[in-house]
Amino acid sequence: MYDDHVSKDVQNFSCPIPITDYKTILIAHGGGGKLSQHLLKNIIVPAFQNPLLEQLHDGAMFTVGEQRIAFSTDSYVVQPLFFPGGDIGTLAVNGTANDLAMCGAIPKYLSVSFIIEEGLPMEQFKRIVESIALTARQVGVELITGDTKVVNRGKGDGIFITTSGIGVIPPGVDIHPRNVRVDDAIILSGSIGEHGIAILSVREGIEFETEIKSDCASLASLVQTIFSVSKEVHVLRDPTRGGLASALNEIAEAANVGIEIDESSIPIREEVRSACEILGLDPLYVANEGKLLAFVPPSIAHKILAIMRSHPLGYNATIIGRVVEKHPCTVVLRTNFGTTRVVDMISGEQLPRIC
Amino acid sequence: MYDDHVSKDVQNFSCPIPITDYKTILIAHGGGGKLSQHLLKNIIVPAFQNPLLEQLHDGAMFTVGEQRIAFSTDSYVVQPLFFPGGDIGTLAVNGTANDLAMCGAIPKYLSVSFIIEEGLPMEQFKRIVESIALTARQVGVELITGDTKVVNRGKGDGIFITTSGIGVIPPGVDIHPRNVRVDDAIILSGSIGEHGIAILSVREGIEFETEIKSDCASLASLVQTIFSVSKEVHVLRDPTRGGLASALNEIAEAANVGIEIDESSIPIREEVRSACEILGLDPLYVANEGKLLAFVPPSIAHKILAIMRSHPLGYNATIIGRVVEKHPCTVVLRTNFGTTRVVDMISGEQLPRIC
Repeated sequence: MYDDHVSKDVQNFSCPIPITDYKTILIAHGGGGKLSQHLLKNIIVPAFQNPLLEQLHDGAMFTVGEQRIAFSTDSYVVQPLFFPGGDIGTLAVNGTANDLAMCGAIPKYLSVSFIIEEGLPMEQFKRIVESIALTARQVGVELITGDTKVVNRGKGDGIFITTSGIGVIPPGVDIHPRNVRVDDAIILSGSIGEHGIAILSVREGIEFETEIKSDCASLASLVQTIFSVSKEVHVLRDPTRGGLASALNEIAEAANVGIEIDESSIPIREEVRSACEILGLDPLYVANEGKLLAFVPPSIAHKILAIMRSHPLGYNATIIGRVVEKHPCTVVLRTNFGTTRVVDMISGEQLPRIC
Repeated sequence: MYDDHVSKDVQNFSCPIPITDYKTILIAHGGGGKLSQHLLKNIIVPAFQNPLLEQLHDGAMFTVGEQRIAFSTDSYVVQPLFFPGGDIGTLAVNGTANDLAMCGAIPKYLSVSFIIEEGLPMEQFKRIVESIALTARQVGVELITGDTKVVNRGKGDGIFITTSGIGVIPPGVDIHPRNVRVDDAIILSGSIGEHGIAILSVREGIEFETEIKSDCASLASLVQTIFSVSKEVHVLRDPTRGGLASALNEIAEAANVGIEIDESSIPIREEVRSACEILGLDPLYVANEGKLLAFVPPSIAHKILAIMRSHPLGYNATIIGRVVEKHPCTVVLRTNFGTTRVVDMISGEQLPRIC
């Protein structure tokens, strides 16, 4: 009863019930929104207490000798396993490599751990393994260790994959929310919402006139291209689970700054916009798997924009907004109608099991 | 039909059907025996092709600057989540830290990724998180990054945990099957079978006169204790899934040597021996989570044995056998009756989901 009530509430952006009272894990606890943050900040971080974890970055950074290392992990539970533009294997490699890239690191080594449900067709497993291998070669990471577990039929869902990655951070790179400054330009590398809509279209059996493909891709080379112009990049973030809105909210909070973005400047492909309208989704909250946000000093913003546009994954890059002093920890959108509205972090997740 | 036939066959040690013909994933593919090896050697390793993965060690090793680093990952799917002597959290930390220790490394950093089934009581999640935190402090590793995903009710099994670990290898340490030499002494750190029997007793609701606790523990400090006497250790291995027999077979094959062990020298606690008899299990194949095997030159075996016995996790250590030139890739047991028999690698798994 209590849980039913809570579940409905998760659909709303505001959260009147104190979220510490949840008695069970809800789907929304894995959605990348407020409930995920709650679990992380109230249960996980306090238990472990250490400054590296408290960075709450996409990955952790530490030093070996004189070399700075980035370390990241993610589990992938996407359904369906195969979708237009990729599969759980491509996602598992690119996703973790991207988390390293968002630390400014060059991805080097990857581990992969499979939790397979008994009865998974061997042919599907082979396709996924081949797709992991191909993607790893494209990204330039070496898969060096792994594990395989099998759970009974009905106790899993085909296959879950956990990848962990290790990357090296080049000298001079310092990506951290603490570096964000008022007036920083916010660059988005391309159009949003494609991954989420691609998944949803397969899951719901919806066909659009043009097939919408996931944007799943490795951002590591785009990041190195940016660094070739300047390493004075303050923050990098890939807006995955929870979409652009959640990523911006996380940064606004971590950096304790306000963020203003301009709706008209955010690239959204027409077919994604239509799909979102039909499905009643806000594209700002729909997951991406091959896009990044860069917070950079205004003085170098246009140079970085230009080099990003020369890269296949950044040809649609635009400056979507800037960092402001007022309304700290809040993201404000200037709409196409000239009004403004607060873009809150979502409580749950519009689309569960998107990655 | 075909699968049914194959499933029955998996119970036998010999495997007359060509195992490349499996059409679906079976529980036994995750058992740590022949079928696991098949999946690894025929599907995973060929797809990824790189010399670090081909080491097929508990973890991979690479170099950053002048520092040698060990990297390892494991997923934990044990049922039940809580058992005498530990829970899935203690297992997830100790298990991965032990894989690093088996590379000769000092475990330093850990990532943890949760795949939680919707509906898991929050209290259980908190207990598991606290137990991870406590175990990490005991081991001396810092948990620095992680991820949380939630899957729908009926698509998981309470919680699955994947940990990845990074450790540093002290100078002078070189643990690798290629170092194994004929006449090496094989030291076992203590009595076998406790983890498997502890899990099974809860799962099957069997009560023994004395409660059998899992031996789940971190072996990192025992390894450093061994190194304090000599770093000339050839191989370290923790006999987990598939038990002592599988671990010895893996080493015999990787090092291309024969192994002889003496049944009377293998410590087995009386209650474990009785439980195995009642349940029809061979203790050589039952999982351990706090024991190690060390392959060392005969000249230093007794010094190492003595220092191991001074450590709380090694007081029961014994030399159980030696490396021989004859019968390469084969493990031979000299029984209590004076006869000998080949101890083969198990095809499947006596006890699924043991870790």
